[in-house]
Amino acid sequence: MSSAVSITLVQQPFIVAAVAQNTAKVLEIAAGSQSDLLLFPELTLTGYPPEDLLLRPDFQLLVEQSLQQICAAKLPNTLVLGHPWRDGEALYNAASVIQNGAVIARYYKQALPNYGVFDEKRYFTEGTEACCFELKGQRFSVLICEDVWQGAPAALAKEQGADWALVLNASPYEIGKAQQREELLQTLAKHLHLGFVYVNQVVGQDELVFDGQSLVVSPDAQLVFRGKACEPELATVNLAVPGQQYGHTELAPRLSVEAEVYAALVMATRHYIQHNGFPGAVLGLSGGIDSALTLAIAVDAIGADKVQALMLPFAYTSSMSVEDAKAQAQVMGVEFDSVSIEPMYNSFMQQLTPLFKGKGKDTTEENLQARIRGVLLMAMSNKTGRMLLTTGNKSENAVGYCTLYGDMCGGFAVIKDVPKTLVYRLADYRNSLSPVIPQRVIDRPPSAELAPDQTDQDNLPPYDDLDAMIEAYVEHDKSLPAIVAMGYDEATVRRVLNLIDINEYKRRQSAVGPKVTSRNFGKDRRYPITSWMRKQR
Amino acid sequence: MSSAVSITLVQQPFIVAAVAQNTAKVLEIAAGSQSDLLLFPELTLTGYPPEDLLLRPDFQLLVEQSLQQICAAKLPNTLVLGHPWRDGEALYNAASVIQNGAVIARYYKQALPNYGVFDEKRYFTEGTEACCFELKGQRFSVLICEDVWQGAPAALAKEQGADWALVLNASPYEIGKAQQREELLQTLAKHLHLGFVYVNQVVGQDELVFDGQSLVVSPDAQLVFRGKACEPELATVNLAVPGQQYGHTELAPRLSVEAEVYAALVMATRHYIQHNGFPGAVLGLSGGIDSALTLAIAVDAIGADKVQALMLPFAYTSSMSVEDAKAQAQVMGVEFDSVSIEPMYNSFMQQLTPLFKGKGKDTTEENLQARIRGVLLMAMSNKTGRMLLTTGNKSENAVGYCTLYGDMCGGFAVIKDVPKTLVYRLADYRNSLSPVIPQRVIDRPPSAELAPDQTDQDNLPPYDDLDAMIEAYVEHDKSLPAIVAMGYDEATVRRVLNLIDINEYKRRQSAVGPKVTSRNFGKDRRYPITSWMRKQR
Repeated sequence: MSSAVSITLVQQPFIVAAVAQNTAKVLEIAAGSQSDLLLFPELTLTGYPPEDLLLRPDFQLLVEQSLQQICAAKLPNTLVLGHPWRDGEALYNAASVIQNGAVIARYYKQALPNYGVFDEKRYFTEGTEACCFELKGQRFSVLICEDVWQGAPAALAKEQGADWALVLNASPYEIGKAQQREELLQTLAKHLHLGFVYVNQVVGQDELVFDGQSLVVSPDAQLVFRGKACEPELATVNLAVPGQQYGHTELAPRLSVEAEVYAALVMATRHYIQHNGFPGAVLGLSGGIDSALTLAIAVDAIGADKVQALMLPFAYTSSMSVEDAKAQAQVMGVEFDSVSIEPMYNSFMQQLTPLFKGKGKDTTEENLQARIRGVLLMAMSNKTGRMLLTTGNKSENAVGYCTLYGDMCGGFAVIKDVPKTLVYRLADYRNSLSPVIPQRVIDRPPSAELAPDQTDQDNLPPYDDLDAMIEAYVEHDKSLPAIVAMGYDEATVRRVLNLIDINEYKRRQSAVGPKVTSRNFGKDRRYPITSWMRKQR
Repeated sequence: MSSAVSITLVQQPFIVAAVAQNTAKVLEIAAGSQSDLLLFPELTLTGYPPEDLLLRPDFQLLVEQSLQQICAAKLPNTLVLGHPWRDGEALYNAASVIQNGAVIARYYKQALPNYGVFDEKRYFTEGTEACCFELKGQRFSVLICEDVWQGAPAALAKEQGADWALVLNASPYEIGKAQQREELLQTLAKHLHLGFVYVNQVVGQDELVFDGQSLVVSPDAQLVFRGKACEPELATVNLAVPGQQYGHTELAPRLSVEAEVYAALVMATRHYIQHNGFPGAVLGLSGGIDSALTLAIAVDAIGADKVQALMLPFAYTSSMSVEDAKAQAQVMGVEFDSVSIEPMYNSFMQQLTPLFKGKGKDTTEENLQARIRGVLLMAMSNKTGRMLLTTGNKSENAVGYCTLYGDMCGGFAVIKDVPKTLVYRLADYRNSLSPVIPQRVIDRPPSAELAPDQTDQDNLPPYDDLDAMIEAYVEHDKSLPAIVAMGYDEATVRRVLNLIDINEYKRRQSAVGPKVTSRNFGKDRRYPITSWMRKQR
């Protein structure tokens, strides 16, 4: 006889390589649960992605010990959890079904993503078989992440009589991804008459953000449950017997793009700082919008008491910048200090002038200002143990409008993958919750303030245009003629693309930061530094 | 009737994405050749590895145009050259056989490496068929690089009646690799009675060094030809008719490990500087062995007139260091200047002291010295356009005995993959050619000179031990107990492994540098920054 199966979706953070701690978390959650079934995310025990740790025999040993420990606990519920598994020469991205202290079934992921941020073919062998088990008269099949995007593994599960697919995921966030997942599962459910219980990781791991937003889609393609974005959650859903209708649904609200990206950046920053054991964060506050937004995110991530802001003015710093930086620090309640970089700048120039042999001023002197600030901020970071957050946005990173070892200093680049136009939208969004960024910071023309009366638009096209060009070239692989055809001046497009190409060396030495677009500068986009691509245009 | 086929092995540099320039080189070499056959290296037209450029439609278009141009030249010889090739949805790592202005055969690489530094499954679909053609009565088959390491593709070529396999390669250098290649080809020849003409790229491309050392092994497993290490070469070999013996062989000498690594570093440095269009290089000379060796390599790579050395002394710099640095610069004939960092150090400390609020001295002050040096060197680099070379070795990089944004500043890290013990051997080797590094630099105990009477061994185990631990952990994935079992103190091993783990964040922001060991810090070893592996020990 079939009856409803209660299932807990374990949308919780599991940390990379924290096998003992992840194991303890599994045991604790299971011990506190009355559910028939607990579904955990992909590679529960090791976190995702463990990268080349997967090649280490001592790492595999930890996983084996963890599984033994979980089995030994002889929990009353059925657990479905993920872990790497070695079988002979082959390593699999696996999931185990554990019941009464024994692994009653084991699944090997069939579809291994090896594009974008993924490198699963570097490590894993593809599985070829479905994995089904029965519970209270309903038939379940196990799938892992990419399996549902490929389609065939879900069809195979259905062929083998499954009512429900239990899907373990580590699906990285990007704008629009949550909606894609819902549409995908509803389409699959409709075609296959198969239900989906989809649990996603909810953790920031280096440049990846796993945003949760777990889902339950019934075999009749109804969205029954949606989990929260970027928040840990333990949700229990009763899976109706096939043919029965769902009486009610439980859907966390779909967020706006701005709210969702902001939540992703906050969680990514919080986890990077906490999981790497830093007592807090420090950042340079310039009076500009990038550092203002970064400060807001940092405070929302770890609390004002753990964040320190430094203003580092020079001759070109406007009084408006000093006032606005101070005002924001005050509103947000963070420690704030101001240190002039003038004495250091003068010392450097005194020592350097004889070596420069009468060569005129150029960007060297601008870079020098940025680098002195970098040294000061790193000194504060070293002395306090607090990590330096770097504040550059994606538009700057793309065209190299930033100084290596200067404003690029820092352990985590909070808005690295946020184009400047989106920076403004996020600032407005954050201020709509409570006013923390002075309006003048948002309204004034952006400037690096490294020369008198400088503005970004002296050197760059307007950000609306620049961001459209960057998206076309970086995210959509469009050619120069195709971008010109979008309505831009050829010389400008050529200059922007050349800047993107020649600044690969800077990006290669940049801090990691959370991916939010369809292609970030990082694992997503792997370009050679030495490249003559620009000479072919 | 069979008769000897003359084949030219085109061991020449092909630059990544320089499709027009590579095409011109192919045409020029072919036009100047009387050979029946010219064999080029893997991905001739695009260079190797083009990485994510392969995903761009405009990049594929360049390749198509290049092939049309080569065919249109209607050259009298047969060309076998490599390029990516799109067929429908699939992209292949291909080789074309071009005769009389037409592609008479096309091969798709069957074995796609996706481990170590390789990511070919990210881009390419595997071929499944052999590709044979006849010339002057002999039968040739085409293979590409990894194909010979897997064995099956060579066996398939033999099955289809080939006398010779023409192998296009981009085989990255590492210590011992040249010997492995020779043994592999001789073993395959012996088993299959198949001859091999093996042409390797000879170019430095970011962190990869393709060392040439092309080979011809006859069907009776005799080594007939060996090309030079890390030097371009156009060698023509007459392929005897099967059954005939080779009258003579032409073997470039096998180099010692030191000579080979040194040659690899020189070529890598030369190509990185030249192919990225820098007019020269600048580096900080400390009086220590790492910068001394780096200077020697830089001068051998691009000439003394293009290299500038800066000594940046402080209170802890010994007079011996100043004297030795100056002496080496003089012997090598490079521009040399000395600038005290004292005024800047004092300015920084004056501004920082109030912020430090009476906290005691720690490594902050040491890092400050290193970072002031970094800022000065980058200022010189910016002002002159010369690229800054960074001088850290693999042992330092492993345990983080280096300052981010300090001595780690620079575009290319010449000895990044050279363990300290090998640094000494390379210095001795270079001095055996001509004495350029003062003997005292080699003999004195190594020191960062960031504190009074400091030596490296105050903080680290002796380098013989340290390098053995690093190799075991990094290159061979050995566990802590396994390394302790090699005869080291457990507390020391634990400390070293923890240092390696926690310094991933520094390495992630380090400059690229040439791979010479079996696993470099770079494409070869992809570790998460956020990792609790050390908490499992």
